[in-house]
Amino acid sequence: MTPIVSIIMGSTSDLPVMKEAASILNDLHIPFEINALSAHRTPAEVEQFARSARDRGIKVIIAGAGMAAHLPGVIAAMTILPVIGVPIKASLEGLDSLLAIVQMPPGIPVATVGINGARNAGILAAQMIATGDAELQEKLLAFKEDLKKKIVEANKELGEVKYEFKTN
Amino acid sequence: MTPIVSIIMGSTSDLPVMKEAASILNDLHIPFEINALSAHRTPAEVEQFARSARDRGIKVIIAGAGMAAHLPGVIAAMTILPVIGVPIKASLEGLDSLLAIVQMPPGIPVATVGINGARNAGILAAQMIATGDAELQEKLLAFKEDLKKKIVEANKELGEVKYEFKTN
Amino acid sequence: MTPIVSIIMGSTSDLPVMKEAASILNDLHIPFEINALSAHRTPAEVEQFARSARDRGIKVIIAGAGMAAHLPGVIAAMTILPVIGVPIKASLEGLDSLLAIVQMPPGIPVATVGINGARNAGILAAQMIATGDAELQEKLLAFKEDLKKKIVEANKELGEVKYEFKTN
Amino acid sequence: MTPIVSIIMGSTSDLPVMKEAASILNDLHIPFEINALSAHRTPAEVEQFARSARDRGIKVIIAGAGMAAHLPGVIAAMTILPVIGVPIKASLEGLDSLLAIVQMPPGIPVATVGINGARNAGILAAQMIATGDAELQEKLLAFKEDLKKKIVEANKELGEVKYEFKTN
Amino acid sequence: MTPIVSIIMGSTSDLPVMKEAASILNDLHIPFEINALSAHRTPAEVEQFARSARDRGIKVIIAGAGMAAHLPGVIAAMTILPVIGVPIKASLEGLDSLLAIVQMPPGIPVATVGINGARNAGILAAQMIATGDAELQEKLLAFKEDLKKKIVEANKELGEVKYEFKTN
Amino acid sequence: MTPIVSIIMGSTSDLPVMKEAASILNDLHIPFEINALSAHRTPAEVEQFARSARDRGIKVIIAGAGMAAHLPGVIAAMTILPVIGVPIKASLEGLDSLLAIVQMPPGIPVATVGINGARNAGILAAQMIATGDAELQEKLLAFKEDLKKKIVEANKELGEVKYEFKTN
Amino acid sequence: MTPIVSIIMGSTSDLPVMKEAASILNDLHIPFEINALSAHRTPAEVEQFARSARDRGIKVIIAGAGMAAHLPGVIAAMTILPVIGVPIKASLEGLDSLLAIVQMPPGIPVATVGINGARNAGILAAQMIATGDAELQEKLLAFKEDLKKKIVEANKELGEVKYEFKTN
Amino acid sequence: MTPIVSIIMGSTSDLPVMKEAASILNDLHIPFEINALSAHRTPAEVEQFARSARDRGIKVIIAGAGMAAHLPGVIAAMTILPVIGVPIKASLEGLDSLLAIVQMPPGIPVATVGINGARNAGILAAQMIATGDAELQEKLLAFKEDLKKKIVEANKELGEVKYEFKTN
Repeated sequence: MTPIVSIIMGSTSDLPVMKEAASILNDLHIPFEINALSAHRTPAEVEQFARSARDRGIKVIIAGAGMAAHLPGVIAAMTILPVIGVPIKASLEGLDSLLAIVQMPPGIPVATVGINGARNAGILAAQMIATGDAELQEKLLAFKEDLKKKIVEANKELGEVKYEFKTN
Repeated sequence: MTPIVSIIMGSTSDLPVMKEAASILNDLHIPFEINALSAHRTPAEVEQFARSARDRGIKVIIAGAGMAAHLPGVIAAMTILPVIGVPIKASLEGLDSLLAIVQMPPGIPVATVGINGARNAGILAAQMIATGDAELQEKLLAFKEDLKKKIVEANKELGEVKYEFKTN
Repeated sequence: MTPIVSIIMGSTSDLPVMKEAASILNDLHIPFEINALSAHRTPAEVEQFARSARDRGIKVIIAGAGMAAHLPGVIAAMTILPVIGVPIKASLEGLDSLLAIVQMPPGIPVATVGINGARNAGILAAQMIATGDAELQEKLLAFKEDLKKKIVEANKELGEVKYEFKTN
Repeated sequence: MTPIVSIIMGSTSDLPVMKEAASILNDLHIPFEINALSAHRTPAEVEQFARSARDRGIKVIIAGAGMAAHLPGVIAAMTILPVIGVPIKASLEGLDSLLAIVQMPPGIPVATVGINGARNAGILAAQMIATGDAELQEKLLAFKEDLKKKIVEANKELGEVKYEFKTN
Repeated sequence: MTPIVSIIMGSTSDLPVMKEAASILNDLHIPFEINALSAHRTPAEVEQFARSARDRGIKVIIAGAGMAAHLPGVIAAMTILPVIGVPIKASLEGLDSLLAIVQMPPGIPVATVGINGARNAGILAAQMIATGDAELQEKLLAFKEDLKKKIVEANKELGEVKYEFKTN
Repeated sequence: MTPIVSIIMGSTSDLPVMKEAASILNDLHIPFEINALSAHRTPAEVEQFARSARDRGIKVIIAGAGMAAHLPGVIAAMTILPVIGVPIKASLEGLDSLLAIVQMPPGIPVATVGINGARNAGILAAQMIATGDAELQEKLLAFKEDLKKKIVEANKELGEVKYEFKTN
Repeated sequence: MTPIVSIIMGSTSDLPVMKEAASILNDLHIPFEINALSAHRTPAEVEQFARSARDRGIKVIIAGAGMAAHLPGVIAAMTILPVIGVPIKASLEGLDSLLAIVQMPPGIPVATVGINGARNAGILAAQMIATGDAELQEKLLAFKEDLKKKIVEANKELGEVKYEFKTN
Repeated sequence: MTPIVSIIMGSTSDLPVMKEAASILNDLHIPFEINALSAHRTPAEVEQFARSARDRGIKVIIAGAGMAAHLPGVIAAMTILPVIGVPIKASLEGLDSLLAIVQMPPGIPVATVGINGARNAGILAAQMIATGDAELQEKLLAFKEDLKKKIVEANKELGEVKYEFKTN
């Protein structure tokens, strides 16, 4: 199947974080691709990637990067596709990459998720595509319901756990 | 026309910032609505708003809030529509609202833009909708081209300005 | 016994921190309950919890959450019971959850304790209830005295320790 | 009437912030007193104040201070009454006073509200007292309802405002 | 004369800061050019600029940008000329642009100066060029001597000022 | 009289802050001198100043500087006199100068006071000298008593102020 | 021998840091005492300690504390002896304790050293006492010379190390 | 060969970081020297080093230091050679050393790289020297091309990795 979400990261060392985006897209049966291209070390490749993405059928781009994270913003500058930025924690607790991704100038937004929040980036990509895909909306509703059930289940277990405090 | 983007803010005092989102949506001829509802002071109204949004035809929600900004996350918890969060600068240079919006737990993303970045929130909403709307894509391409022209124009003017330094 | 303090956390992964609140309440013989409900993943359950707490006899709610910690504020929005917020350290050294809990807008306070300060949350809950409970005041006086004794005791031991520096 | 809430601040220069606590207590008909005593410049007076508060009938203490704000913590060390800390913004955007108040060691909690959040401190004091005062609970319910109405009202006005964007 | 230093900024609104770089280069008789091109709004123009700079005789590039400042890093990615980054204060006291410029990944350095430090960027450019230009070294030595004289002079004046304190 | 405290600042622009140190020394009749010398622009003069201070009868040095504040540390490196560092707020709310002064490596302490805390630097200098000067100790005791009286006086006035809240 | 420096810490858990102050005082043959007393848990004992220190012959107090570190400031409020504050790293990388110690209000200085900088606190105490003790000045000069020698020695060894890079 | 780049660090404990600068200079066949001298513990040696560097043939100085990092600025004050500052992470995630190095006053720039960014410091030194050395420019072009190839290669490998997500 032709990928409709493109996951890109600045370095293969970001893969342990970014693969969570792939995992959730996989669960939701959304075809995707993964690439590692650096805004700083392979600018020409990044440009070619960004400018061709829409023509290749990509609908949303998820870009992860650390430190002075330029990759999401550089791609956003070259496409009208929505770009989701994932700040990777590599230094300063991830605050540098968060600010370098989210604080974009007027005209070029990057949809930023939390530090190392690749899973949420995948969900957000699905939500964006679902705005025009009723079937995917149903999947997201089921996913949300499932999320709730897990918490409710965990809470039930906690109900029994709590008594151990009362008697000590 | 039925609004497809819903702009919501925690307090009417956020309007001077949030109206920039309205302004760009207006320019792109995307019908929208604006509301002020507080996650903390009107939780029931926020819930009703969030749970009914999709049925009313809303495709994207833009939510702005300051300080311990809960509004975007609270809405995201109650809908599968993509929620764009706008951190409003009200204290601590806006760092508190940025963190309170962007650092969402796994499962519930908020697409966060920069501090006071309401204009970018409007553009991002358009980009999301455009994933399923070819006509809007054309508008966004024209918008991006226009953005470029303004900078190139400004640069030309700067070309003449610069000589004043050379002779002083 | 009917619980009068309710401890709630956003995720069972917060239990190692939050059980310190339970432990001190246990020591003070204050009946309590513990739940794990997420403001983002189970908003309806949280609402039901918050709106019914007072009728169930709860007098104080202790709510712990990490990252963009919305749970304490969301509950405070739905009850007039005092809500004690415990910022859980999960990222950014806990600064994000601290700000997301303490910086509440006018009208809806959350009584915030330090990062991972669940034990202090338990003591604070006891102090609140003690404003109308003379017997509990006596227990708190004894607890405070005990705290002092431990430090004084530790200081005495230090008195002997110190000589090791003098001779090396 | 004998005051049951005591508002204390480190310096009379904190009065413009701290009087918001007084104002809301006044609205709720809760008798209070205000004092300015410095943990650093009048330690003996602060001690006398803190140690005698409970005997004078005080049920809750609200303490505001800026910079290396020690006043709330110093008072909390000397009483079992709940102490609400108000970080006053005097330098570093108020971050120094927030941390100096909220990050208390185990054993001695301070119920911290947001930076300059004196109004919330007043409401929180009322909530604490209301745990043992059914009449005050009714007042707080009415206050919360009123808060909601103002927002709902403001939202209605916004409904008309929004059309100005649509036609420009 | 052919410019050998190129000053570039993300927006003409950065000119009040960036012209200080022009001013010192002017004083040192180093020919320069100034341009406003945005990494985000005119990426193709920035690329053309960066890739052609060396061939046009440019030896050093000074790039200023604010917020999620990508311009210096984007240019550094496309040239082997040394790039001096000037973080412009536009939000968060300039901390966002400082981190977005200085925290570059291994392989692509940006020589970062202080927030709004355009004057120092100009001096640094001169120092870099002077490594291969003995005449310019002499100018820099004279400039440094002059800097010292102004301080020594100011100190002498202070010597008289100080007595006013002694008698009050 | 021969000065025994030396006040030094990085730039005459620091005088409005640093003169508060002079003012309190004047009040306590401690002879002092003031100089403006820059660790960066007049390193040789700073060295001569630091190395000769003890021989000239100086007992304590107060050094104020902003931004990447090196002056206190540079002087401390060249003398065994205690050096008091005053972080001057010039950027980043003064956090940069605070960290650049206080975070000294093992072996070379700088006694740091708060941001713009020149008055406290003067008092601290007096306290250091008073460790060997009984008469100055008496003056400091009187000064401390006076400080207390002002607060107690202000508190009395506040006693009357408070009733205005009660009737509105 | 009667101690002339008093080392005090908020908790015996601070001993691994604070003993470095003891160690350097020991090396310089300055008699000292060590105590653990908490500003929050043993306020009466702290007060007795602070008010009696001068009469017991103490000349300088070194106080270490973490988190909302009040101990140095509380002691400084009760004595005219110079108080050296050591911020202990216990949370937030030590930034909370640094700010809670250094940002004292006008009138009550605390001579703050770096985070966990107990060794420097010991040296600073010696420097203060040395302002009235010629013999101790000689010791400090020797100590400073020794510090230099170690670095110069280390540098010599580095001279040989460096060639290993050249050939790989 | 006579060194033309001088690497200097505040302490031999900085060697594991700083040797990355040596390593890349070695790769580019640029002769260098390494020294450990402390701005605070060996100020006279630092001064001799800085003042003699140009006469010894040094063209660029790379200086690394941690905490209140003064070494780069102190050296920059004493030479007209370009000084590259490397903030070493030793406390506060390296933020203290970054600010202490980058926030230099007007007149004395330090070319700052990222926290622990010694490798980039080496590349930047090469870029500076290459402004007057055509052969070194070729080497840097080859180095940049090589950097690109590694990323492109890594991306190819990732192409195969990605399918593992699709089937799980």
